[in-house]
Amino acid sequence: MGNVGYFGVLTPVSGSEQRDMNYISSASNDKIKYAVKLGKSAAFRRQEGLFFLEGARLCSDAARTGIKIACCYLTGQAGEKYADYLSEIEKTGCEMCEISEQVAAKLSDTQSAQGVFCLCSIPNVNPQLKAGGKYLALEQLQDPSNLGAVCRTAEALGLSGLIVSGGCDIYNPKVQRAAMGSLLRLEITEVDSMPEFIENAKALGFRCFASVPDSDAQPINKLNFEGSVIMCIGNEGNGLTKETIEMCDMRVTIPMAGRAESFNAAAAAAILAWEICKA
Amino acid sequence: MGNVGYFGVLTPVSGSEQRDMNYISSASNDKIKYAVKLGKSAAFRRQEGLFFLEGARLCSDAARTGIKIACCYLTGQAGEKYADYLSEIEKTGCEMCEISEQVAAKLSDTQSAQGVFCLCSIPNVNPQLKAGGKYLALEQLQDPSNLGAVCRTAEALGLSGLIVSGGCDIYNPKVQRAAMGSLLRLEITEVDSMPEFIENAKALGFRCFASVPDSDAQPINKLNFEGSVIMCIGNEGNGLTKETIEMCDMRVTIPMAGRAESFNAAAAAAILAWEICKA
Repeated sequence: MGNVGYFGVLTPVSGSEQRDMNYISSASNDKIKYAVKLGKSAAFRRQEGLFFLEGARLCSDAARTGIKIACCYLTGQAGEKYADYLSEIEKTGCEMCEISEQVAAKLSDTQSAQGVFCLCSIPNVNPQLKAGGKYLALEQLQDPSNLGAVCRTAEALGLSGLIVSGGCDIYNPKVQRAAMGSLLRLEITEVDSMPEFIENAKALGFRCFASVPDSDAQPINKLNFEGSVIMCIGNEGNGLTKETIEMCDMRVTIPMAGRAESFNAAAAAAILAWEICKA
Repeated sequence: MGNVGYFGVLTPVSGSEQRDMNYISSASNDKIKYAVKLGKSAAFRRQEGLFFLEGARLCSDAARTGIKIACCYLTGQAGEKYADYLSEIEKTGCEMCEISEQVAAKLSDTQSAQGVFCLCSIPNVNPQLKAGGKYLALEQLQDPSNLGAVCRTAEALGLSGLIVSGGCDIYNPKVQRAAMGSLLRLEITEVDSMPEFIENAKALGFRCFASVPDSDAQPINKLNFEGSVIMCIGNEGNGLTKETIEMCDMRVTIPMAGRAESFNAAAAAAILAWEICKA
């Protein structure tokens, strides 16, 4: 797979674009439609092996992390304003393509577009769990901002990596933006079945904890998280699946007061990650 | 002030509304314009002493918490679907006013409006700091979702209250929604000057901590947070002001690993609140 689809739409160059191969002025250009579709559709991203990033800083983070960049789209204004970031991107040898402000507005997901966009290869990696490592395992998180915030927290606290099963796609542009580059640097393992993953992790000596909002679960401040640890966090509305909870060694909880029914998923993840990393 | 403005626009009833005093079919109705303005403008909310809430659950939370409700707008469909929540609201004796779906769409800030809206009085309270209490003090938080998430965390962990200085208005409808009712139940103190507030709190025996992303600050996992504690958290982009940091007893930090430059404000607040509440 790889970049086949992307380079497929590169040729032939259509009439209106012939004056300059590297300038796109129309939002209905095939390459732009392709980029928009990558931003919108998780299935299309997987089919093409590419994802779409927006923002000068984020795109240069991708370049510095060694993510393969197929193409960078930038406005003339961005070329002047973000020269330092763009030189990082250009160093990767990717195609650089100037776009009009109108095209930038079409590509952008934000109200004040910087005018810098990249198409990047989805890394083809399969990280191994590290003995003694501390991991968060996220089951069907739905909210892009939550997922991005959890990634940012995980990196800041020095977690060994994340396991992600279902829910919002980590290559969703909103997730990438909320993660502020952390997703490009963290070790991420995507799994189809969380219970199956937990079963395998336990066989490797990991202690696996299911975080739940139940008052009869073990309070996390009374536990010891030394050694190899995986902390599972569930969906915003429904929590972890019954199957995942049952596969874990123990149900744990953040003791709550007040009338709030539960934490925001990103807040819960921050407290849980903090407790397992402190050990 | 109070409800003068609101009841001012109630009379006289304009032509198109005469068929039924309690039914509003047009989004250009003065009362609806008034409600929209309350939702949008912090200055107008303060002038009128009212704020705007959206959502059946949130509005009934306000009623149950004893917030004074001036008026409830609801669609016919909502009247059937959310009867339980609405009876809580009706019990307060507030005006109930049916609106068309078109008006609901105008009032709503969400894509799938429930069709329930309330105009509530801003509580006129001045909470006193409790000896031995644990507080977060938020200086110029800008993002409504962050501010709401912090409130939700504060309530869940059983903090004594929040101090808020500048930044996003706590009566912004987006903040209220993200806070999921916690803002209606928490003790909130709004202050003009955070350094001045800190100075007064210190005189009352509070230890005041400035959270900063500096590696030379005291790591929070090495500190004791017994007794009366105020933890200050700053703006997403710029952190705490120099004046507030200098007024605090100590600079503290969440030890970081990795290349992330800082935590999301809501994640940092969760970890900080957790540490001071555990004590």
